[in-house]
Amino acid sequence: MSNSLAGRDLLSIEDLSKAEIELILDQAAQLEEQCQKQPKLDLLNGRILATLFYEPSTRTRLSFESAMHRLGGDVLSSASAAKTSSAAKGETLADAARVISGYAHLIVQRHPEILSAQQAAEGATVPVINAGDGSHEHPTQALLDLYTIQKERGQIDGLHIAMVGDLRYGRTVHSLSKALAHWDVTLSLISPPALQMPPLLAHKLKQKITVNETEDLSAVMAACDALYVTRIQRERFKDPADYDAVKDSYVITRELVESTNPEITIMHPLPRVNEIATDVDDLPGAAYFRQADNGVWARMALMALILDAVE
Amino acid sequence: MSNSLAGRDLLSIEDLSKAEIELILDQAAQLEEQCQKQPKLDLLNGRILATLFYEPSTRTRLSFESAMHRLGGDVLSSASAAKTSSAAKGETLADAARVISGYAHLIVQRHPEILSAQQAAEGATVPVINAGDGSHEHPTQALLDLYTIQKERGQIDGLHIAMVGDLRYGRTVHSLSKALAHWDVTLSLISPPALQMPPLLAHKLKQKITVNETEDLSAVMAACDALYVTRIQRERFKDPADYDAVKDSYVITRELVESTNPEITIMHPLPRVNEIATDVDDLPGAAYFRQADNGVWARMALMALILDAVE
Amino acid sequence: MSNSLAGRDLLSIEDLSKAEIELILDQAAQLEEQCQKQPKLDLLNGRILATLFYEPSTRTRLSFESAMHRLGGDVLSSASAAKTSSAAKGETLADAARVISGYAHLIVQRHPEILSAQQAAEGATVPVINAGDGSHEHPTQALLDLYTIQKERGQIDGLHIAMVGDLRYGRTVHSLSKALAHWDVTLSLISPPALQMPPLLAHKLKQKITVNETEDLSAVMAACDALYVTRIQRERFKDPADYDAVKDSYVITRELVESTNPEITIMHPLPRVNEIATDVDDLPGAAYFRQADNGVWARMALMALILDAVE
Repeated sequence: MSNSLAGRDLLSIEDLSKAEIELILDQAAQLEEQCQKQPKLDLLNGRILATLFYEPSTRTRLSFESAMHRLGGDVLSSASAAKTSSAAKGETLADAARVISGYAHLIVQRHPEILSAQQAAEGATVPVINAGDGSHEHPTQALLDLYTIQKERGQIDGLHIAMVGDLRYGRTVHSLSKALAHWDVTLSLISPPALQMPPLLAHKLKQKITVNETEDLSAVMAACDALYVTRIQRERFKDPADYDAVKDSYVITRELVESTNPEITIMHPLPRVNEIATDVDDLPGAAYFRQADNGVWARMALMALILDAVE
Repeated sequence: MSNSLAGRDLLSIEDLSKAEIELILDQAAQLEEQCQKQPKLDLLNGRILATLFYEPSTRTRLSFESAMHRLGGDVLSSASAAKTSSAAKGETLADAARVISGYAHLIVQRHPEILSAQQAAEGATVPVINAGDGSHEHPTQALLDLYTIQKERGQIDGLHIAMVGDLRYGRTVHSLSKALAHWDVTLSLISPPALQMPPLLAHKLKQKITVNETEDLSAVMAACDALYVTRIQRERFKDPADYDAVKDSYVITRELVESTNPEITIMHPLPRVNEIATDVDDLPGAAYFRQADNGVWARMALMALILDAVE
Repeated sequence: MSNSLAGRDLLSIEDLSKAEIELILDQAAQLEEQCQKQPKLDLLNGRILATLFYEPSTRTRLSFESAMHRLGGDVLSSASAAKTSSAAKGETLADAARVISGYAHLIVQRHPEILSAQQAAEGATVPVINAGDGSHEHPTQALLDLYTIQKERGQIDGLHIAMVGDLRYGRTVHSLSKALAHWDVTLSLISPPALQMPPLLAHKLKQKITVNETEDLSAVMAACDALYVTRIQRERFKDPADYDAVKDSYVITRELVESTNPEITIMHPLPRVNEIATDVDDLPGAAYFRQADNGVWARMALMALILDAVE
């Protein structure tokens, strides 16, 4: 019997039920364990992944490609699909995805525009995974974030998780918070007023879980289990003075961690610039690089399930 | 005994005899059938393909790379070879191809200049396949076009094939018409006066097959078996008014197909912009996406024969 | 027992002892011989190489990738890492290399800045090979150069080797001369005054081997065993007249070779523009394309040793 993800697209984290997310996380743990013994599996031997990146994102692309190689499959890689003559000539994303469907068994697409993944999926005759469509969705990031929380803290239920930084534009915190709402968690949201979580999303979350909104980072750190840090970009502020006023309030230093909560798990979707000081890196709870590593296992699990290569 | 393509370059469709084209088409059919049962063959296990693209063409590149993976081989990919320092420093294409010959067993090159494939072949010590040299040649496109006609219509002999659109600059129709002239076909050429088939080529074709030139699309559609559509580009016209006068005369709509010839096979080298309406896509004769798919089988056949991996 | 290179970075040719260089050259010879019989080995089956190129260099990248495929491993390729959003956002090379360490077992990095390889190695948790950091180092080029000298001349000890052209800025001659100083060689350096070997390096070399500096190319050619040619770039001269005065003095023609030393081995790191005339190419001593081929064997040896896949 096929698993419920077989042949499916993954365009939004909302496409997945809690049971499906749990299936992916379980599968990720199994594949990670198998790969410790045997670096290359043959679950997807003969299957071809095409990565279509209309905007550059080396790490997301290479994470998927590494996952495919470890599953025994092959990869067709397009790191800058936007510059190709076909896109420039005005071909639709649906047509492009239909053509690539003849070359590959699975498409991973990144594109700067909202709903671009949906458009690709309409044309494609093979499953499409959204690897980021503008500020909209990046569902596999949410999966690897959940997998990281579970690995670092042993479970998701019962945790108090905080998100800090740009909660308005950051698609990772949007996708992750929607996913976390399947579990029994407390969510603290810490941001400058101009970068608060969109009210509609905050409202939806509050219907399912406890959500606190605050500007006081250290108080939340003292109380929470995991802190998800995102970068605040200068260009999000109309008035540069507003940026200068807040930029240092949300920098995680070793001193801050040690004085508030030395056991806290610290996550970040990366790249990090200076919102986490480098002397935090060797604290035991500094999980952000392990989090990036986990992308491989989460994506292996997703691709193996979509291509129905696991029972 | 080696097949007659073993170790050969393919720079122009005119390099191939009719028997050699038939060998490739037969091989393509066999490989397509084999891949239905077993997605990855091991005919080219241990062989390496290098794709050298001096201008971007994601689909042509990925089609070759998909073909190589399905044959069990490996791929070295250069999606934007023109920007590398060596090309910028003034290295010849012959030297570049000689160097790459040390890394790969087969080179597929795309380059914006006429005869660039010939230059690469002069330096290379491994076979070179031309994947497009400016407006000149794109021989594997002609092979997949022929393979598509044969699959869609059962045979090539006896068919009435029409080509519509830009017949002056479109290298695909030039290569395909030269190849079709090996068979007993009738060719109808439909284009605005400014974009007619080059007189020299039309003259050559007429010495071998029946060729009609016309501007009346619907009359030809009613009579022909397959229609090969190409895009008319605004920039080909000196006077924009000339473009505006013809652009809508050569758009294939569902209504046009159903009212003239519902059984017609419709082909297009893609990308399609608006010269075929999207509501044509689900007509049974709409073969253009299957045609793109066929690129993989035709290129597998060609590479397996050149590397002498089939009997 | 692991070999002494297992798990090591290679950032500079000076990281290697003479014994380690000899180990690599021996291994290269063995792997070249094995690949003549069997094009693809399985020494690195399941291992993944990531090539991170922050500046384009198709041939260096493809040489490493070809080597990895022949060893049975897989490749993640980033041909233009500098354009990705992470680098643009200000991520450090150390962070980037740490993230990629989760995707691959070995990183090959090219970057325009001096010491960039060192920075990557500080972050990476897997070995890093420097594939060029600005004008600083390109150690695998020196390895393939040594391998070529040994293959072409049977040994390195006792040879008289000349280097001609830009000895001031050319990193290849710097790395190679440092490596050659491990052997009993005579080195002749031929360049215009403005492009002489840096005095500090020349001084270091003279402490270990006999070094002659001269401007007289033909006298040296008559006396030496191998001539290593590098390109003189116009942009290195403040006054264009100085360039025009010397540019033709250092062009290797067939007549020059035949009149001075028909047996001489001629090397060049390529790309060659016009500093070696093309009619030299078919002389028996014209080794520069074989030299490029040797990059695959030298890099296979290095990667197999670093990943400890050979005894």
